[in-house]
Formats: sequence, structure tokens, C-alpha cells
Amino acid sequence: MAEPLRIALAGLGTVGAGVIRLVEANAALIARRAGRPIQIVAISARDRSKRRSVDITPYTWEDDMVILGERPDVDVVVELVGGSDGSALACARTTIEAGKALVTANKAMIAHHGLELASKAEVAKVPLKFEAAVAGGIPVIKGLREGAAANEFERVYGILNGTCNYILSTMEDTGRDFADVLAEAQAKGYAEADPAFDIEGTDAAHKLSILAAIAFGTAVDFRSVETTGITRILAADIAQARTLGYVIRLIGMSETDTNGDGVERLFQRVQPHLVPFDHPLAHVDGATNAVVAEGNFSGRLLFQGAGAGDGPTASAVVADLIDIARGEAGPAFSVPVEELVKMEAAHTGHRRSRSYVRFLVADRPGVLAEITAAMRDAGVSIESLIQTGRADSGGEVLVSLVTHEGPESAVSEALRLLEGSASLTQPPLVMHLLGS
Amino acid sequence: MAEPLRIALAGLGTVGAGVIRLVEANAALIARRAGRPIQIVAISARDRSKRRSVDITPYTWEDDMVILGERPDVDVVVELVGGSDGSALACARTTIEAGKALVTANKAMIAHHGLELASKAEVAKVPLKFEAAVAGGIPVIKGLREGAAANEFERVYGILNGTCNYILSTMEDTGRDFADVLAEAQAKGYAEADPAFDIEGTDAAHKLSILAAIAFGTAVDFRSVETTGITRILAADIAQARTLGYVIRLIGMSETDTNGDGVERLFQRVQPHLVPFDHPLAHVDGATNAVVAEGNFSGRLLFQGAGAGDGPTASAVVADLIDIARGEAGPAFSVPVEELVKMEAAHTGHRRSRSYVRFLVADRPGVLAEITAAMRDAGVSIESLIQTGRADSGGEVLVSLVTHEGPESAVSEALRLLEGSASLTQPPLVMHLLGS
Repeated sequence: MAEPLRIALAGLGTVGAGVIRLVEANAALIARRAGRPIQIVAISARDRSKRRSVDITPYTWEDDMVILGERPDVDVVVELVGGSDGSALACARTTIEAGKALVTANKAMIAHHGLELASKAEVAKVPLKFEAAVAGGIPVIKGLREGAAANEFERVYGILNGTCNYILSTMEDTGRDFADVLAEAQAKGYAEADPAFDIEGTDAAHKLSILAAIAFGTAVDFRSVETTGITRILAADIAQARTLGYVIRLIGMSETDTNGDGVERLFQRVQPHLVPFDHPLAHVDGATNAVVAEGNFSGRLLFQGAGAGDGPTASAVVADLIDIARGEAGPAFSVPVEELVKMEAAHTGHRRSRSYVRFLVADRPGVLAEITAAMRDAGVSIESLIQTGRADSGGEVLVSLVTHEGPESAVSEALRLLEGSASLTQPPLVMHLLGS
Repeated sequence: MAEPLRIALAGLGTVGAGVIRLVEANAALIARRAGRPIQIVAISARDRSKRRSVDITPYTWEDDMVILGERPDVDVVVELVGGSDGSALACARTTIEAGKALVTANKAMIAHHGLELASKAEVAKVPLKFEAAVAGGIPVIKGLREGAAANEFERVYGILNGTCNYILSTMEDTGRDFADVLAEAQAKGYAEADPAFDIEGTDAAHKLSILAAIAFGTAVDFRSVETTGITRILAADIAQARTLGYVIRLIGMSETDTNGDGVERLFQRVQPHLVPFDHPLAHVDGATNAVVAEGNFSGRLLFQGAGAGDGPTASAVVADLIDIARGEAGPAFSVPVEELVKMEAAHTGHRRSRSYVRFLVADRPGVLAEITAAMRDAGVSIESLIQTGRADSGGEVLVSLVTHEGPESAVSEALRLLEGSASLTQPPLVMHLLGS
């Protein structure tokens, strides 16, 4: 059998421990499939003395993770530290500059610095791989970059954050409100102590920007992802959506858009959507992730699985290692960095969507007339409208409506007309409806 | 840009025409992603003068498809003729022996001769690829062979035949019977004039045997797939299943099984199953295919999409070509042929399953007692039983029951006890329940 592929691990949290467990448990099978063994030679983490779920004594300890790639006995560094900058980025840069391959699960780093790292990897002629950075154990980077590589993509979208999906589907199952379910998720370890990255949509936006770059051949543009989280969704929204035939899911959506003027622009949005019952994403529950890629020849492809967790993430990391062991290479974002198009962000006002708009209003005469007049004046056509009292809200009333398909700018205009209205007890919530 | 990858097409049916359309329509994008253009240089089919949906005049015509691979201007032959033997196999052999890569969508050929062809390809050091042979446009071969390569697979199963799934989901939606829906599917072109390969499960068995080989590292063993088609399913079965919380889907199921005696054996079965509403496969409707792979680290992965059609199949064919253009190689079945284990077929009697058993019986006293006594005598524990009259059957009565989990041999024994009973108007139908 050929020489082993020698790897170093930077970061020994749950995913790092998962990679050690996987490489040990499935060693023989990995060697058979990769054509050679994968061997962990060195490890590094912030705190050497921390209690860990795996025995790290067989591996050489290195205090400074940044220099792992400079060890002559290391072929690949696996960066599992996390964080867009800091020691993760330093480790990634040093590794590639030392002419070693880099595998990472770090979506924030790839969303912010993926282009720089991919350029460096091209110069150094080493692989840069990050399957685990998007949708955990689901091989969706490979699916887009290779499996569906023959297609022009029409849309790529999906459920990219397991914490949000767990919270939304639990709210749906139990009728409980957001804050309550979040607290439980934190207690169970399904949500971080500081959940902002997840529940405000940032994590999904990181992943979406990576998928979009691969799918559309564009430069990663995390900053232009229009991002709305799930923090304002009420149990009542979920109940209303269900009445209308929808579930609510946090969807990351990307497509290119010629915007009427023929100039191709990149549309990227993370937002809670109403997903019709008959759409495959409506059945994605709990911490599961799923990505849909619509290709001009493949039609709709769906990739679904566990979006996080040590086992699934380790599965994706080691898949990258097996690819490297087999000699698979090629540009990280499918095409060389210099061929990635720097595409302007799409304008969204002209987009034709169906929208769900929910108001919390004071329970007094004339409120409905005020809302419907604003909609009429802005040219928004209302398909359905429901007004319900809120048992728990001391006289507050919930008004939710669904519009016919029309320009999103019209809905924005209607809400502008209602700005400052004394009837509204908080700003309205807008969610779009996902087309079938 | 590097030299083009020059391909020859053998077979110009709907898929062949699809490949031509795709290579022409997405040429620039393919060249960018593959690092070099993919160029069709020669074509061949049975009848040169046949009217086709694409213009074939730009390509050199070769009367004899078997010698396409011997042309010095061809790097890869794409075999789209179909059929396990005959000119498809002759073309495949000659191509590989001439030292050229082979891409094929031919599941029957790979199921029957895949090992021989893969051995030849290893000797000749050329790629053999067949993504399009399983589940149409879904990159599931890649998903197992690469994306989930770090995992030991616990089970691999799925909906592998679009015609059957179309028929079953149409029966479900309309309440109509099998023969009626089949006739309509044939009229619409969703089912072949001779539908036997599809509806008797052979096509799904071809695909399952290929997936199992890759997943479990075993020699392809199509002949030992236990295969039951969908021809005996009644509208009444679908209605009963629904009452119990299930839909009926033709599932190809594979796993390894140590059978109590520690010897690892390969279990492969194509059979209609009752799939619980909360399983992702229960929502796979129409001609869609879906494959579930359960890995020991990845957990459950689902790959879903169009299982047939010229566009999706061409998408898979060209994905293989892009891999070849990029220099991706490696064993066709993930590991070299000599490392594939020739695993004995699993015994099934000891398998613990929940079974749905449906009887058509004469409407007279004592029949239920006869059935339940046989179940009792064979040690089968009945969880639920429904008896319903059949409006259309002249006094025939339908009795369907679901067993508790128990050895499949017990159900077989109960049916053996009932063999020859004058009460049964036709042999009972057994379907297993898919676990969640």
C-alpha cells in the first residue's frame, strides 16, 4: 500500500475529537477507499490539559497550531478552531504558504477569506477543501462542484442552520413561542450560550455565500447577503402559516438576476420563508439541513442530512482527506479564483414575490382600514387576510395577510406608508413565500 | 486553455440527444469548470437516417459503434445504447481495451458485467464511470464513493425506479388500480411499451446491486437481489396503508448482515414497502428517485432528484466527463476489483421485520379464524387487522394485517400453513414496513 497521508489537527473541540474517533474507527475502510492510510501525526489546541473524550496521547502535541503546516512530517492540516480570523486564519495561511493542503470546517473563515486562501492555494498548487463548512455531513459542496457540474444553476437554496430549524420545527410541534424554545435548546446543548450567529441568520449567510460562489462562479460575497433571522417569529405566525398550507423555515436563497436591465447580478438572501407543504423542504425537521440545487439539465436536486454534530462534520472533513489522498485536486470554488466573477448584488425591489406580512396592532376601530388602505395605495394586492386576537397580549391583535405575486418594492412602500402609525404596536414582519 | 477532452457517443436515443444538447448549451461553463472544453468528435447509432431532435451533422459518423474507442481522435466513449450485452458490451470492451475511458448510463451492463469492465479498466489504467446508471441525474454514486467515503454504511436504500414511483403515487392520489394507471403511464410515455423491467423490479435491482457494491465493498451481485415488483398492489392496499399511517413505495434495500453466526453476508431486496408518513421517502412522489445512505458517522444522508429523463441523465453523464477532464480517476467501485469481497447472499428468514400481509378471501364464515389460527400456529403476533369488502369483486373480501416485529420466517411459515386453502382466492401479498 502507498505511503500514508499524514495529517495534523488544529483544534480539538467536539469536531476535532470526532475526526480522531472517525480516523481510528474506520481506519481500514478509509485506507482501502483512499488507496492509502490516513494517519494523524500531530495535534494542537489552545489548552493541552483539558479533559477530552478521546485519548490524544498517541499524537505529537504542538503548542503553536500556526506552525503545524511547517512540520516536515505533515501533508495536510485540518483546521477546526473556528472563527473567521485569529489563529484559524493564521494557521490556514501558514499551512498553504508552507505548501501543504488545508481542510477546514470553518464557514466564517471561508466566507470572509476564502478567496484569499483559494488564491494562495492555487499559487502553492495545494488543495484547499471545506466540505464540512456547509451543511455539516451533507456532501453538497461536492454535489455542486462535481456532481452537478454540468449544469447552469437556476437557483440554489436551502435550510442551512440546524439550530434555527430545530427551534422552528419545535415551535411548530408544540405551539410554544420562540424565546421559550430557544431557552430549552440552549439547556439541551442544541443552541450556543450566545446564539446570535445562529438565530440572526449570520451562520446561514456564511454558508449561503460559499454555495453561491460555487454554483454561480462568482466571488464569495458574504457582505451582500440580505439577512433576517428568526427571532421575531411568533407561535401565531406558525399557526397562521399552517392554516394557509405552509410551514416556516429559515431559507438561504441565491440566484442570478438580470433585473430587467440585462446586467447579471447576484441575489443572496437569508430569511424565514413560508414553505408550501408539498415542497421537500417542508418536511425537513429538527436539526436537519437540506440544500436544493436547480440545474438547467438536472432539474431539482435535493441533498439532505445532519447539518452539524461531531460525527457528520467529521464525515465531511475525512471525505475531503480521502479526496486529497486519492489525488483529487482542482480549484476550491470549482473554477480558478481569477475566473470568479465579481458580481454586483442584485436589487430586490423589482423581485416579484408573494409575501406574508404580519402586524401586531392595537385592538381598536379603523386599524384594518388603515392597513388595507396602505396596501391599496402602494399597489399591493391582498390574497388573504386573517385577524386574530392574542390570548396572551392584553388587547393586542394580530393581523396577517398574504399578497398576490407582485414587486417586493410595493410591499416596502406600503410598510413605509404605515411607519409611525399609532395603531402598530411593533414593526411589521415580512416573510416571502417559497415557490413550489 | 488546455486541450479539449474528445468524446464519442455510442447511441443517439433521448439520452444521447440530451448529452449533445447539454454539451452544446453549457459548453463555456463546462470548459471553465473542467479546465478544458469537452468536444464531441464522433457519433454512432443503429440508424443513421433516423429523424432526431438534435442536429448531428457537425459530428463524424461512424457506422460501427464498437470501434469508436479505436479512433485516435477519441479520449472517451460514452455508451448510451443500453442492454446488458450485445453492442453496448462489445463497445465498452473495445473502448477500454483500446486504452480509452468509458462513461455509461447502462445499469443492466454494469449490474451484469461491471466487475469485468472495472478489472479491464484497472489493467488499462483508464476511468470507467457510470453515475447516470443509478438514479438518473442524482449524483449518488459520487455521494457514496466520495462524499460519504469516510463512513461504514449501515444501510443503503431508496426509490430507484421512477416508473414504479409514478404509478404508486398516482394510485395513491387517484384511488385507481394498478392496471389502469399503468395503461395511462404508457400512453403518456412515462412507462415503456414493455414495462416488465420496471414494474417487476428488475431495473431497481440492477441499480441496487451497483449501489451495494460501492457502499459495502462487495462484488456486484445482481443475481442474488430478492426482487418483487409492484404488479400485485391494489388500490385497496394503498388505502389500508394510509389508514395505518403509511404510503407504499418500491424500495431497494441493502445492508450487510451477520445473521447470528458472525459471518458477514449481503442482504439485497427490492420490494414494495410500507413507508411511514414521517420518513423522508414517504414524500418522494411522481417519477422522482431518492437514495438514503446511513453512515456510521454521517448519519442519514438523502439524495433526491429526477430518476430519469434526457436532461437529468445527460447531467450525470457530463458530470462523469468533467471528472475525467479534471483528471479524477480511481477505482470504479471505490476500491480495486480484487479488493471487492465476494459476499454470500444473506439468509432472510431470521430477519426481524414488521410485515403487512394482505389476503383476498371468499366471503364466508370461518375465513378469519383460519388466517388467525395459521398466524398463531406459526408464532406470528398480529398488531392490527382490517377486513373490508371489495365493491368491485363479487363477494371477495380483503383481509389485511400488520404483524409485530418478528422473524420473517414465521410469516412465511404461516403462509405455508395456509397454502392450498380453499378460502384464499389468490396468493397473499407480503410487504415489509420500513423502519423510521
